[in-house]
Amino acid sequence: MSQVTEDYKKRVKDLYQKSQIVLTDEELASIDYADFGLNNIEKEALNLILYVNNKRYCAKEMVLLPNQTCPEHLHPNLENGLEGKQETFRCRWGEVYLYVEAEETIDTSKISVTIPESSKEYYTARKEIRLLPGEQYTIDPKIKHWFQAGNEGAVISEFSSPSYDEYDLFTNPSVKRNVRDR
Amino acid sequence: MSQVTEDYKKRVKDLYQKSQIVLTDEELASIDYADFGLNNIEKEALNLILYVNNKRYCAKEMVLLPNQTCPEHLHPNLENGLEGKQETFRCRWGEVYLYVEAEETIDTSKISVTIPESSKEYYTARKEIRLLPGEQYTIDPKIKHWFQAGNEGAVISEFSSPSYDEYDLFTNPSVKRNVRDR
Repeated sequence: MSQVTEDYKKRVKDLYQKSQIVLTDEELASIDYADFGLNNIEKEALNLILYVNNKRYCAKEMVLLPNQTCPEHLHPNLENGLEGKQETFRCRWGEVYLYVEAEETIDTSKISVTIPESSKEYYTARKEIRLLPGEQYTIDPKIKHWFQAGNEGAVISEFSSPSYDEYDLFTNPSVKRNVRDR
Repeated sequence: MSQVTEDYKKRVKDLYQKSQIVLTDEELASIDYADFGLNNIEKEALNLILYVNNKRYCAKEMVLLPNQTCPEHLHPNLENGLEGKQETFRCRWGEVYLYVEAEETIDTSKISVTIPESSKEYYTARKEIRLLPGEQYTIDPKIKHWFQAGNEGAVISEFSSPSYDEYDLFTNPSVKRNVRDR
């Protein structure tokens, strides 16, 4: 049975509404509630509306429920030689903690969020960036990253090169990305 | 003397504020108030905040004051073979009338806005698209376009391929684009 219940959908839509971002009924009806096949949607998932994804650029509006985490992944180069996805996250509402692979890291005991217990070995990136509304950060291609909302949840705009979600490489081998948007 | 008065800046910032989009103080201090050298800023101009512009994509938040018009232009291919800019306009607040070059056109007497009188011969695109909050439209490269806000003004997100504003071709030969963002 799907974990995407009516209650779950309502909580996601409520966060979009809190952010004051205007969305069409069609967009609200086609939110991608991605559970990544992990059967742990309250802790590990990502909810998003795809505004545009063409051969040149992509834009999305993402929601994380309170303390919900998008699992660690990276965007590899594509077989046809196209460079991996580069993306800019801009926090619009709430608070998000972003972790990226970097030489400069912090000890696991010092990170500000709680890593999902059942998958903790699959969260390895340790450079921490906290984004509040109006703040943004750009992630270079091929850099492992994961992100978790603060206690109230988060609404995050993503501006990026084209999305080819089916090529994303997740650290957790159990992840299955159900790609609805393409 | 610059037409960008403190009163003008305040009216632009007030529209960003009405849209509920959260901006940093640094962003608000570096708004690009582009008058295109036309000495007609109340009628012909574009105000924008550049979120990101790299080799792969660009995102901006634009404001038009009530009935203000962004002059007609197109984004040509670049000398190095890069394709001209493709862009998606998403209305966030207010109302915007977008005009694009197309076979399907309407008679000048039937368009919904008033073309700036002093430059009316430089507004030629006649396919009309009205965008309300949550609505968006993608403009292909090399298509002439211009746009005007409705009576309350407009806040418009732009998602696009990279911006090389200095290469834009304006229909009005008097236009001088003072590029502050690059």
